[in-house]
Amino acid sequence: MIIIVKQNHEQKQLDNLIKWIKGQGLGVDLSVGENSTILGLVGDTTVIDIDLVRSLDIVENVKRIGEPYKLANRKFHPEDTIVEIAGRKIGGDNFSIIAGPCSIESEKQIIAIAEEVKAYGGGFLRGGAYKPRTSPYAFQGLRENGLKLLLKAKEETGMPIVTEIMSASHIDLFRDVDLIQIGARNMQNFELLKEVGKTGKPVLLKRGLANTIEEWLMSAEYIMSEGNHNVILCERGIRTFESYTRNTLDLSAIPLLKELTHLPVIVDPSHASGLARLVKPLSLASVGAGAHGLMIEVHNDPIHALCDGKQSIKPIEFKEIVDSIDVMLPLVDKKRN
Amino acid sequence: MIIIVKQNHEQKQLDNLIKWIKGQGLGVDLSVGENSTILGLVGDTTVIDIDLVRSLDIVENVKRIGEPYKLANRKFHPEDTIVEIAGRKIGGDNFSIIAGPCSIESEKQIIAIAEEVKAYGGGFLRGGAYKPRTSPYAFQGLRENGLKLLLKAKEETGMPIVTEIMSASHIDLFRDVDLIQIGARNMQNFELLKEVGKTGKPVLLKRGLANTIEEWLMSAEYIMSEGNHNVILCERGIRTFESYTRNTLDLSAIPLLKELTHLPVIVDPSHASGLARLVKPLSLASVGAGAHGLMIEVHNDPIHALCDGKQSIKPIEFKEIVDSIDVMLPLVDKKRN
Amino acid sequence: MIIIVKQNHEQKQLDNLIKWIKGQGLGVDLSVGENSTILGLVGDTTVIDIDLVRSLDIVENVKRIGEPYKLANRKFHPEDTIVEIAGRKIGGDNFSIIAGPCSIESEKQIIAIAEEVKAYGGGFLRGGAYKPRTSPYAFQGLRENGLKLLLKAKEETGMPIVTEIMSASHIDLFRDVDLIQIGARNMQNFELLKEVGKTGKPVLLKRGLANTIEEWLMSAEYIMSEGNHNVILCERGIRTFESYTRNTLDLSAIPLLKELTHLPVIVDPSHASGLARLVKPLSLASVGAGAHGLMIEVHNDPIHALCDGKQSIKPIEFKEIVDSIDVMLPLVDKKRN
Amino acid sequence: MIIIVKQNHEQKQLDNLIKWIKGQGLGVDLSVGENSTILGLVGDTTVIDIDLVRSLDIVENVKRIGEPYKLANRKFHPEDTIVEIAGRKIGGDNFSIIAGPCSIESEKQIIAIAEEVKAYGGGFLRGGAYKPRTSPYAFQGLRENGLKLLLKAKEETGMPIVTEIMSASHIDLFRDVDLIQIGARNMQNFELLKEVGKTGKPVLLKRGLANTIEEWLMSAEYIMSEGNHNVILCERGIRTFESYTRNTLDLSAIPLLKELTHLPVIVDPSHASGLARLVKPLSLASVGAGAHGLMIEVHNDPIHALCDGKQSIKPIEFKEIVDSIDVMLPLVDKKRN
Repeated sequence: MIIIVKQNHEQKQLDNLIKWIKGQGLGVDLSVGENSTILGLVGDTTVIDIDLVRSLDIVENVKRIGEPYKLANRKFHPEDTIVEIAGRKIGGDNFSIIAGPCSIESEKQIIAIAEEVKAYGGGFLRGGAYKPRTSPYAFQGLRENGLKLLLKAKEETGMPIVTEIMSASHIDLFRDVDLIQIGARNMQNFELLKEVGKTGKPVLLKRGLANTIEEWLMSAEYIMSEGNHNVILCERGIRTFESYTRNTLDLSAIPLLKELTHLPVIVDPSHASGLARLVKPLSLASVGAGAHGLMIEVHNDPIHALCDGKQSIKPIEFKEIVDSIDVMLPLVDKKRN
Repeated sequence: MIIIVKQNHEQKQLDNLIKWIKGQGLGVDLSVGENSTILGLVGDTTVIDIDLVRSLDIVENVKRIGEPYKLANRKFHPEDTIVEIAGRKIGGDNFSIIAGPCSIESEKQIIAIAEEVKAYGGGFLRGGAYKPRTSPYAFQGLRENGLKLLLKAKEETGMPIVTEIMSASHIDLFRDVDLIQIGARNMQNFELLKEVGKTGKPVLLKRGLANTIEEWLMSAEYIMSEGNHNVILCERGIRTFESYTRNTLDLSAIPLLKELTHLPVIVDPSHASGLARLVKPLSLASVGAGAHGLMIEVHNDPIHALCDGKQSIKPIEFKEIVDSIDVMLPLVDKKRN
Repeated sequence: MIIIVKQNHEQKQLDNLIKWIKGQGLGVDLSVGENSTILGLVGDTTVIDIDLVRSLDIVENVKRIGEPYKLANRKFHPEDTIVEIAGRKIGGDNFSIIAGPCSIESEKQIIAIAEEVKAYGGGFLRGGAYKPRTSPYAFQGLRENGLKLLLKAKEETGMPIVTEIMSASHIDLFRDVDLIQIGARNMQNFELLKEVGKTGKPVLLKRGLANTIEEWLMSAEYIMSEGNHNVILCERGIRTFESYTRNTLDLSAIPLLKELTHLPVIVDPSHASGLARLVKPLSLASVGAGAHGLMIEVHNDPIHALCDGKQSIKPIEFKEIVDSIDVMLPLVDKKRN
Repeated sequence: MIIIVKQNHEQKQLDNLIKWIKGQGLGVDLSVGENSTILGLVGDTTVIDIDLVRSLDIVENVKRIGEPYKLANRKFHPEDTIVEIAGRKIGGDNFSIIAGPCSIESEKQIIAIAEEVKAYGGGFLRGGAYKPRTSPYAFQGLRENGLKLLLKAKEETGMPIVTEIMSASHIDLFRDVDLIQIGARNMQNFELLKEVGKTGKPVLLKRGLANTIEEWLMSAEYIMSEGNHNVILCERGIRTFESYTRNTLDLSAIPLLKELTHLPVIVDPSHASGLARLVKPLSLASVGAGAHGLMIEVHNDPIHALCDGKQSIKPIEFKEIVDSIDVMLPLVDKKRN
């Protein structure tokens, strides 16, 4: 952090400021140039309230120089993190595919989809048990029963499972879940992040609807600061003024994140657009951008089929996507895992 | 909800669609015009997945007509809701002022501010015990101890108190808090909303950083659907591309909300801008826009004072704001309470 | 501008960088601290491409310290600018009201509205002759004929007139227009800004739909750098994810602009919301926020009246707004002009 | 367009509304259901002011059903448009690469880059002569002289050229430019769109910084409605709250546009991110998303080289990108042209 002091400052004010900074446990590197006086703060500046400093009378400006995240920062951990989940790996030169239905509806449904997804190249099975819904009147998921059905599908197929947690009070129920998902709306539910951090279990952290890359990494930092370094980031679209798509998938974030952090980054092209027919082009785009994997919604449900529903990718379309990805992977130095 | 059916639809597909809608417990009002066929859905359409319907082969377009919120909707409850809190009222023609420090720091600090705030016209005392911080390394508040100090200030001054809850597991600790605040980052923490709804206690629901007015009212609906109608909305700025202010205060939301809902709406001008010197003009603007009250950060802290901190409004500036508000209130048919 | 040099830089690279900066006509203030080397650039740093500098191998970070606008900057011109227009003043402690129809439709219409607006307290008459429309098939305004009708209304009522220009090729036609409006979509039409700057005539510069306050001031700077300092800023709402209102009126910008610039700032509450019934509360909010004036759409059109149109404020509602403003003005130390 | 009439409407009001709609040259399809009365408007509803209708007393809601763009709409022109430019084709199954420097600086520079770009697979040469700059003090391009140098490079290399126009008054100077670019800031400079439309020359229309896909297509419609159907769209990033990248590249727009319109769509990955090292991954992502081409900034400038500038892609890096693209193209059924 750099503090630029006003030219007409009083010496006593400057002394007070330096004393206060040192009182926060930081060192101060004073640089007096011909036209400016600059304080370089040395040490862990995350304890400093930047807005407070900016508001001081003698301060012309304050600029944060370093990144506020540490454990997630590639600078201090140059090697890619590879998260091991039930014998499978996410990160590095591995390309991982998570697939399954938005909601778990029945034992028959989840097992049928799991088998198809596995046959066509899916490495992990996803399925929603607890569903975050904008409306209290909408279906909230099968909740605890949904978890049981998902575990049954895991048993049947041997696939590691991924599902979303919505409250710290449910953590015991998630004991056999292989990869715990934190949804976009809970990305800054800090109490939940801490609790999930304490479990040590692999966590899939979705980006919040309007959260910056820096805030996202700070949420990863919450989990990691509890000792749990098994964090995988998942880009799923951000909120913009554009209304033709549900969200705007931010694929520039992928190569950027690969510079900023050592954590794996995957993409969810299904939720971003809200349109099944965009899933294939956005999947290939994600591979091109350098993602470590994809999370794809796959459905095969007779109720939806009644009216020729086209919202979800069907297993056979999923296969086509995986086949195209396999052709692309050598170009980005990855192999499917 | 209105479904526009494609002109070249097959009769069987249309029959299937109508059958499916009726299977969801809804009525269908079929309107066959010369050039279009339109289905008007009758009943509680919040159970319908609009994206699913839009994706059907025979559907040209779907448009939601009614608002998805009911208990919060002014259509079904034309009278203003007035929330009673420890003998005070928020809503209707009452104008309420909540004031206090961002964080509770010590018994001396909170009681001193409480007394000044009360003397100058504040009706409610706010103070942060549990603090949602972007960084895990930043001060997280005095937490349980902070709550105790706040309760002591309540005892000393008789002021009703407002403070933020961050986890459903803390609800028991909030038993003597008069108005429980849900922060912006937890606006869609649905499990927390349900739990707070069950307490029956007055809730101050802040708008999420990137949430629409409709989503905000749906979160109020979550609390209300548990039987708790004591909900007060608080606009605190939304996230935009503008970076000179921390957030963009959306004052158009105030008159709009007064049409859409019967719930009281207040404004937090302190967090919106992040700049103490904007608090007065934005407070007067909020009164002009028709808000039912304000939540203002007031500070009086010797540590901050060391370097002439100007981030927070001091008690004497708070007094000036209240005095100006008092002049304006007759113009908007309100009285300070 | 501050350049933070990487700790492990080679001396030769640093020498090259300093040489290059000096080659751009700037001075360099070298500050070598214990842990960091910082270059403070002295002089007009607007010629420096900040992205280029940031991309250099030896650069850790670059931070702009000063504002890039100069003529518009209050630092170099502490007194409020008061723009004189046909004997009337905008800026300082004057509060100005511009009113009139969105589009000029006929001589009868524009004169009738002008007379009512004048009677009820409007100081300036607005009316659209050239209309920027999203669709090429929509009514594009009466164009040159509209200008003639507006000039006739000016003659009849003596009111100074305000209307939008859409192309530099129309400048000769605007010779008798008192205040030339640059619309939101042309805020960064730099060739038009330069041409309007050359005329020396008062300019009303609307904020672009997604432009920052800094970009807005830089567009004012384009006009001013041609020698024309008669610039008035007009906030009219920015584009956000919220869809209940057409735009989000950014009233925090008002007090902020009053610090950053000496130019007058007014608000257009009609276009921001797109809802006539929000115009009154947003007008009062604008006064509270400290605006120097308002631009209000007033209509009185039998065609619209046919179906009880409520999009526009009618003259009698305009009167009510002006009456309420008059009560508020002493509170913000302004008088209506 | 669908108008939902309030249930408690008076017959006379409904008659008036229908009469008014018919007076606008439209047909009305009246659908009276059990619980609702709906008017379907038949004909060119772009003449209707949707906000006006929504504001009427008897109107419950209005919904636009059809797209407001016609000439650009794939519904009415199912075949891909292929724009022919100096013997080369853009659109359909062709993949086109436009490359060159941001600004033209000298004859030597532009010819040297042109030759390298051509050797490595670039099909079109770009170079900025007129530069839209936020600051009036920044370099505004070589303007007319820049155009002359670009034409010389065209002569030397035989490459078709692409450059930006900033004012209708420059059109004569652009007579020998093969593809005229409309920049993001001028996307809604409607007078310029009309004038460029009249030339009949191929136009590269960049998306505005905060413009929706619909507005973008309406701007294409402005050009096409003058009889010029040679329009190519160029996605270049939109403005969001994220600040780590200069803009957020909206790649979801690519597959969506291919459904909505028959016009070719290319991507500019250089301006979107503002970071040279993101150009390769975003180029591959664009190919995966289905773009018809790319516009890449390539630079080879000794001044920038002085300090090891890394903002721009160098010719050798450009070659690597083209080589990777060539491997991907069969996957998306395209061939480089």
